[in-house]
Amino acid sequence: MDITSVNNERVKYWSKLKIKKFRDEEKKFLIEGDHLVDIALEKGLVLDLITLDNNYDFENKFIVTEEIMKKISNQVSISRVAAVCKYDYKSDYVGNVIMLDRLQDPGNLGTIIRSAIAFDFKTIILGSGTVDIYNEKTIRASEGMLFNINIVKEDLFTSIPKLKKEGYSVVGTDVNSGTNLTKGKIALIIGNEGQGMDEKLKPLCDSLVHIPMNKDCESLNAGVAASILMYEVYHG
Amino acid sequence: MDITSVNNERVKYWSKLKIKKFRDEEKKFLIEGDHLVDIALEKGLVLDLITLDNNYDFENKFIVTEEIMKKISNQVSISRVAAVCKYDYKSDYVGNVIMLDRLQDPGNLGTIIRSAIAFDFKTIILGSGTVDIYNEKTIRASEGMLFNINIVKEDLFTSIPKLKKEGYSVVGTDVNSGTNLTKGKIALIIGNEGQGMDEKLKPLCDSLVHIPMNKDCESLNAGVAASILMYEVYHG
Repeated sequence: MDITSVNNERVKYWSKLKIKKFRDEEKKFLIEGDHLVDIALEKGLVLDLITLDNNYDFENKFIVTEEIMKKISNQVSISRVAAVCKYDYKSDYVGNVIMLDRLQDPGNLGTIIRSAIAFDFKTIILGSGTVDIYNEKTIRASEGMLFNINIVKEDLFTSIPKLKKEGYSVVGTDVNSGTNLTKGKIALIIGNEGQGMDEKLKPLCDSLVHIPMNKDCESLNAGVAASILMYEVYHG
Repeated sequence: MDITSVNNERVKYWSKLKIKKFRDEEKKFLIEGDHLVDIALEKGLVLDLITLDNNYDFENKFIVTEEIMKKISNQVSISRVAAVCKYDYKSDYVGNVIMLDRLQDPGNLGTIIRSAIAFDFKTIILGSGTVDIYNEKTIRASEGMLFNINIVKEDLFTSIPKLKKEGYSVVGTDVNSGTNLTKGKIALIIGNEGQGMDEKLKPLCDSLVHIPMNKDCESLNAGVAASILMYEVYHG
């Protein structure tokens, strides 16, 4: 199907997916660029394929003008292809788990997803107050790895007892002190950029870890701290 | 001295420091917020102190209006204090060295500076084509650690032979293969986000390292990769 008018109802709908509230209502989000679209197609998450060229073989395909692509896009330079995908929240925990407590920066979230895949953490739990995973900055920073991770959205006070029941060691993080990382199935909590992990979560953890560092530096970037700890678990 | 007009020549001058070309000509940059200003004062790098309140004891102090602060600011929410600082490039290498080859993202650069301080890398070399260190995003992402690192701006083809002469092991990075990190004085090269390190730099290195990871993930964020390798050197 060809669409040429920027006032077309579908175009308006796609464009509204920039708004978090609308995404949450529709449970859909927009991705841009052939790299991301290819991965989403492979994973079966694409609902509408939006393209300037007619070089995709997909049932629900819309060929649009550059003006339309510009209208729906979040980016400065125009993409040749975009896609509307469905939200893909899961409820089960698979493999090692990284849990986020009120993480705020979409770039940090994307970086953590990318490192999680690199270091074989298969599940991410987005605790209450954590930035939206379907934010375009997060999607971009994840470099497509968003489609490779098992995403759970759940309050961490709910997750922790469930994880323990399933045999996970729940490991919290602390800037000042902590023991070494344990072996076995791990569920690691990373806290808010400014405040770290909620103090009330700490007594629920099996142990706490920290990354020893030079005293001139108060703390690491949250994405870096999460990545180093996942790297440590992976390389054991 | 009090300034009340946004058309004051000094205000125009401060505001122009948003432009990289102007910063480079003047060899000055602007910082915002009490955290950064306090560190810069301590390091003796402040030339002009710009404040809404009169609660700083500094000779070259300017008390300005909120409107003026808004005009010179790079941020959405207004700071109570800002300062013009002088560029602080050095020419000597101190401690372990992190070298950047065409790193593009200002946030990644800030993150790397922060991790460098955390893991005791005392010098950063900004190779040709690397993003401006006095970019406001870099300053912010570095969390003030910019003022704690020895900054050298130099083409890496020039740095490498000098570093070797001073007894450094020059370690390049490669996505696919590499040996373990060596002991002793290390100069570690981190490459461009998309392309990695320049292939022509590789034969000049004493060794190459890589971070083993799950094959589902092509690569790590450049800030994360740099941080993990510096962490490895620090924890030996």
